[in-house]
Amino acid sequence: MVDFNRNGYINSKGDFDIAEGFARRVDSMRASEIRALFAVANRPEIISLAGGMPYLGKLPFDEISKIMETLVREHGPKLWQYGVAQGDEELRETITKIVELEGLDATAQETVITAGSQQGLDSITRLFCDAGDVILAEAPNYVGALGVFRSYQVEVVNVELDEEGIILAKLEKTIINTRARGKRIKFLYSVPNFQNPSGITLAVDRRKPLVELCKKYGIMILEDNPYGLLSFDGQLYPTLRQHWKEGVIYLGSFSKFIAPGFRIGWIISPDSVRDKLVLSNESVLLCPSNASSLTIEAYLKHFDWKTQLSAYREGYKDRCNQMIETIDELLPNCKYNKPKGGFFLWLEMPEGSGVNSKDFLEAAVEAGVAYVPGTGFYDNGDGENFMRLSFCYPSVEEIEQGITRLANALKKTYPEVKF
Amino acid sequence: MVDFNRNGYINSKGDFDIAEGFARRVDSMRASEIRALFAVANRPEIISLAGGMPYLGKLPFDEISKIMETLVREHGPKLWQYGVAQGDEELRETITKIVELEGLDATAQETVITAGSQQGLDSITRLFCDAGDVILAEAPNYVGALGVFRSYQVEVVNVELDEEGIILAKLEKTIINTRARGKRIKFLYSVPNFQNPSGITLAVDRRKPLVELCKKYGIMILEDNPYGLLSFDGQLYPTLRQHWKEGVIYLGSFSKFIAPGFRIGWIISPDSVRDKLVLSNESVLLCPSNASSLTIEAYLKHFDWKTQLSAYREGYKDRCNQMIETIDELLPNCKYNKPKGGFFLWLEMPEGSGVNSKDFLEAAVEAGVAYVPGTGFYDNGDGENFMRLSFCYPSVEEIEQGITRLANALKKTYPEVKF
Repeated sequence: MVDFNRNGYINSKGDFDIAEGFARRVDSMRASEIRALFAVANRPEIISLAGGMPYLGKLPFDEISKIMETLVREHGPKLWQYGVAQGDEELRETITKIVELEGLDATAQETVITAGSQQGLDSITRLFCDAGDVILAEAPNYVGALGVFRSYQVEVVNVELDEEGIILAKLEKTIINTRARGKRIKFLYSVPNFQNPSGITLAVDRRKPLVELCKKYGIMILEDNPYGLLSFDGQLYPTLRQHWKEGVIYLGSFSKFIAPGFRIGWIISPDSVRDKLVLSNESVLLCPSNASSLTIEAYLKHFDWKTQLSAYREGYKDRCNQMIETIDELLPNCKYNKPKGGFFLWLEMPEGSGVNSKDFLEAAVEAGVAYVPGTGFYDNGDGENFMRLSFCYPSVEEIEQGITRLANALKKTYPEVKF
Repeated sequence: MVDFNRNGYINSKGDFDIAEGFARRVDSMRASEIRALFAVANRPEIISLAGGMPYLGKLPFDEISKIMETLVREHGPKLWQYGVAQGDEELRETITKIVELEGLDATAQETVITAGSQQGLDSITRLFCDAGDVILAEAPNYVGALGVFRSYQVEVVNVELDEEGIILAKLEKTIINTRARGKRIKFLYSVPNFQNPSGITLAVDRRKPLVELCKKYGIMILEDNPYGLLSFDGQLYPTLRQHWKEGVIYLGSFSKFIAPGFRIGWIISPDSVRDKLVLSNESVLLCPSNASSLTIEAYLKHFDWKTQLSAYREGYKDRCNQMIETIDELLPNCKYNKPKGGFFLWLEMPEGSGVNSKDFLEAAVEAGVAYVPGTGFYDNGDGENFMRLSFCYPSVEEIEQGITRLANALKKTYPEVKF
């Protein structure tokens, strides 16, 4: 047993070992299965249904490059300089107009720019959670959120979903049970639209009741809405925040409908939280990137992004339809919720089939297709009879071929199962 | 007294108050005096000697905009897409060549890209520090580092400097005393070159002995070197990390010698730390910005950045010389260490003068000049007889006039003092 106080990083063998000094939170940081998979999934012979990358191939980069050229020539010194911790004011104004499309009234003052929505998640968890606190989260859940929550040594308590989203009666029971255990519930984390990975959308008529329930129990809601503009039919769903400004913090992102390469997202929150978020930005980033912020601002200003958005919706709808069509044809006994938008389809193996999606992955990759095993989206080992299939990046043809490879490999590996 | 477990965010008046749920660490996050100052300092009639913004005015943005146009046209889909958590490999290769200029052998594998050096500081503190741990830090110290350390509820213990940097005998005594108090020392934080705010450079012949001392006591060193390439005479100083690869983590940044607007820095560390830093990047950012990384890569590749660097050095030297000349003329009884590079001069008020630089700031701003009071660079209220004067951003003429305004205001406010 080494006494760190006396010996510092010098271990029991008398050697300096830098890992001796890690903080306790490092124990709860671990590599996600999903990330480890990406190296494999990126091999050219593999059709990847694993990633969550938006499809950018058809963007008119010739036109965009000219916008960039003008921007740098005219505003270079501002683009390349430090900005303010809250983020560029003009971009914050523009963001209020984007969320207005979803019926959310917001001001630039309430808005803080983040280095992607991920940094928003990190900042909110940093501001609210001590080790041992509880976050209520939809199960299955976004793997990147689980990673953040773990890194703050938070206990994630699962909230059950049906095909219309969070089941309110079960949520209430979970709140009561969790408090009975003496735990502090810091917030409910929800992705209400086209949730990652389940593809589920919270029914419109459940939204106000969900907010009322949280209000009754004095629980803050963290609403994460990266996909909201990407419904297949153009429908826009009301935000939770619009129902309750004091108690809902809203996370948004440019990553899914413009481009993730800039790492720009935003948080809309009550003033007392906004003030702390600005301090958090100063501490983590000094300030968001001016180069990224002003480029997005120029794109939105000089480019017909709403028409581009319609093209994205159409493209993702076509891809999703192809995926569904091929699944219905080749894997008719596998169930799924039909997504209304977003990037993902959550495929359930036939009941009692004994398929373990984590074990099967190797055979799938062997057959030239990759997906994410369902276990990655649970903190408790559940999800082995699910696969997350993404239809955002591959072409319609690749999707058809990918699902075909997947079906063939399943049938070959589990000849006794009726898929 | 409200029972959070029972009532959540509902306060003693029965109202929902989101601030009820803040984590304990929020108590230690506070707005820095410096940031609050920037709003004032940015008024056009004020000559600001307060900020740490590099001077970018003379960059040939016409030429750069053409590089950008080509980059976006040819590599748009890669620029705009997600990257990998460790950061773009080609840029990491390039970084190894940059640090090689300072004699540091590094590999791309050891290197992790961060969202500015600030995020590197945050990540290292996150990985190593539990609440109550000690960080040894040069006093005065970079205000952005103090902010990060506070946000992790760390105790900062000051290490004394003379004009040649850390005083080794005093450091050793501090280590012994701190451990005698039962505290865990997690690392020594040092900015060895042209330190912010003191302008002090660690003497070359103290570098190896400093490393040996830390090695002896089993203490990791966090070496932060944003200004290393910006010596006035082009001299490059040996890094601490080159003396001790197992025990020194190196932070670098493009912010000072290319541009801060991209928020791109780097960390070079032992493998066991690198692995955790990649997880930390996934958790905080998903990945660094491809758009920013590839733009910097293109700038370094297609632009004569070394000649530009010489121009920066000359420019900063001229500005610093003007500052010194005007101080020597108008404030001959104020002391300072003559900087060998970097951005800052640390001005000491005459001994026993009773000048409180925090109180005096209002009068200075009234007279049309801003600086940062020395108290911002200490965690314990020290520093009131110092001012940090930055010579990086204003022109030579503005510096002359700014110091003149400062001198006049000092003499007017404290007529009894011989400055």
